[in-house]
Amino acid sequence: MAAKTGFIGLGNLGAPIAANILEHRALAVFNRTASKTGPLAAKGAEVCDTIKALAQQCNIVFTMVSDDAALHSLCDGENGLIQNLAAGSIHVSLSTILPQTARDLAARHEQQGQHYIAAPVFGRPEAAVARTLNSAVSGAEAQRKQIEPLLKEAGAAAVWHFGEDAGAANIIKLCGNFLIGSALEAMGESIALAEASGIDAAAMWEMFGKSIFNTPLYHNYSKIVLRKQFDPAAFSAKLGLKDLNLVLQQADSVQATMPLANLLKNNLQQLIRNGGENLDWSALSQAAIAR
Amino acid sequence: MAAKTGFIGLGNLGAPIAANILEHRALAVFNRTASKTGPLAAKGAEVCDTIKALAQQCNIVFTMVSDDAALHSLCDGENGLIQNLAAGSIHVSLSTILPQTARDLAARHEQQGQHYIAAPVFGRPEAAVARTLNSAVSGAEAQRKQIEPLLKEAGAAAVWHFGEDAGAANIIKLCGNFLIGSALEAMGESIALAEASGIDAAAMWEMFGKSIFNTPLYHNYSKIVLRKQFDPAAFSAKLGLKDLNLVLQQADSVQATMPLANLLKNNLQQLIRNGGENLDWSALSQAAIAR
Repeated sequence: MAAKTGFIGLGNLGAPIAANILEHRALAVFNRTASKTGPLAAKGAEVCDTIKALAQQCNIVFTMVSDDAALHSLCDGENGLIQNLAAGSIHVSLSTILPQTARDLAARHEQQGQHYIAAPVFGRPEAAVARTLNSAVSGAEAQRKQIEPLLKEAGAAAVWHFGEDAGAANIIKLCGNFLIGSALEAMGESIALAEASGIDAAAMWEMFGKSIFNTPLYHNYSKIVLRKQFDPAAFSAKLGLKDLNLVLQQADSVQATMPLANLLKNNLQQLIRNGGENLDWSALSQAAIAR
Repeated sequence: MAAKTGFIGLGNLGAPIAANILEHRALAVFNRTASKTGPLAAKGAEVCDTIKALAQQCNIVFTMVSDDAALHSLCDGENGLIQNLAAGSIHVSLSTILPQTARDLAARHEQQGQHYIAAPVFGRPEAAVARTLNSAVSGAEAQRKQIEPLLKEAGAAAVWHFGEDAGAANIIKLCGNFLIGSALEAMGESIALAEASGIDAAAMWEMFGKSIFNTPLYHNYSKIVLRKQFDPAAFSAKLGLKDLNLVLQQADSVQATMPLANLLKNNLQQLIRNGGENLDWSALSQAAIAR
């Protein structure tokens, strides 16, 4: 059996993760926009022209794409991942997608004797470079354990296991992105209130960042929101809206009521209507202020 | 000049703070409900029957009451704090109130040659006992520096200075409580989504509490929200609604738009309409779920 590792999807976060893996092992890469493979090729990655060519030489394939449709388009069809991986291969899916999409793909891989592991990651591109990502994984236990060392090579400081259900890790990821978005909106409103009240909001966040909200997440994002430095985006408003739509789709499907998630979605829609789709999603914190 | 320290307002948080001070120095205490002075009297505090009696023997008086009206009622009038403190005395006001109330009281103290320092605290009663409170202070610099050691005796792990404006520290406190309330709502929605999706929400918060939200605030409150243990209250829904009303009153007065603060207020109102006014305010995280 082919025994190489592959990586499909070299976006803002995929590229540094692939580069991390390449420091540990040979890597075959594919990207829809071929030019993005250049930096990895320069470091010794083998560039494949098609997903089929990659699948035929790999027994472990990481994918990181922007949405459910993009993941389907690389998995499905005669030239897709599922038709071309050998039995026993593992698809490690890093994308933020609906749990149901993960479950459907897991079932189809299983029909081919292959494995699907959901492994969405928390962390912005700089966290990938610093190898401080957090990885949530779910799927068959044997394969989760098998890929755990690879996830650490990929830049995960910690790997968190969520059982056999292939969709479970995606729910964790959706909840996490919702929580981060909520923190952004709260930061934005607190800063706006402080500034309108004549208070030094940076001094306020100096206190909060060293006391009740003493985490890298609040340190990093409060600086971005205070300075309103939303360009260039590490994670765009467009992708943020995609994730909020997934959160609310999942909430609808299980009849959960999420008014704060709706508020975040509305803010992202307003931001995008105002031309901000390529700004960092943390600009959602400003949508209310402009109302 | 009288040189004793006094403490008025022995509620859930006031009582352990007063007990901390009493470990360092003699303390005169007053509480509207006199029975609450018992435990402190047993430890050697001098119980005063009136605010006037307390004011006449103290040069530093801490106050911690539930709202702006309660603070006015103890400051105002012939028998109030302002009429009965000696010139040069300091009123250290720990309550969560509107910045404008703080400014008005500061001006009236100043007319009597007295000082008013706003010193609201972050932390629940158990944090007072553990001496891990955070104190935000504003007002005249000399008096802020003078009382800093007392705030540490009172249980503050850190004291954060916000300048001469007596109202500044109150804005910090309102922003902080708003941020904590926002985190509670986000926790509640994330837990509801996970549970409705068949996920172990405790395992999810085990991950978040050790990664992106690794702070005591998230550790403590996520356990409360997961277990839905809202009784007994450390900080009641009724007081939470009072604070959200102050946040929105302040926002109105400076024309800041705070949709998330409105959502929190609505949740607290709904919780109280459903009979939950004496539950812990973290039960606001459940209001949306019950909708």
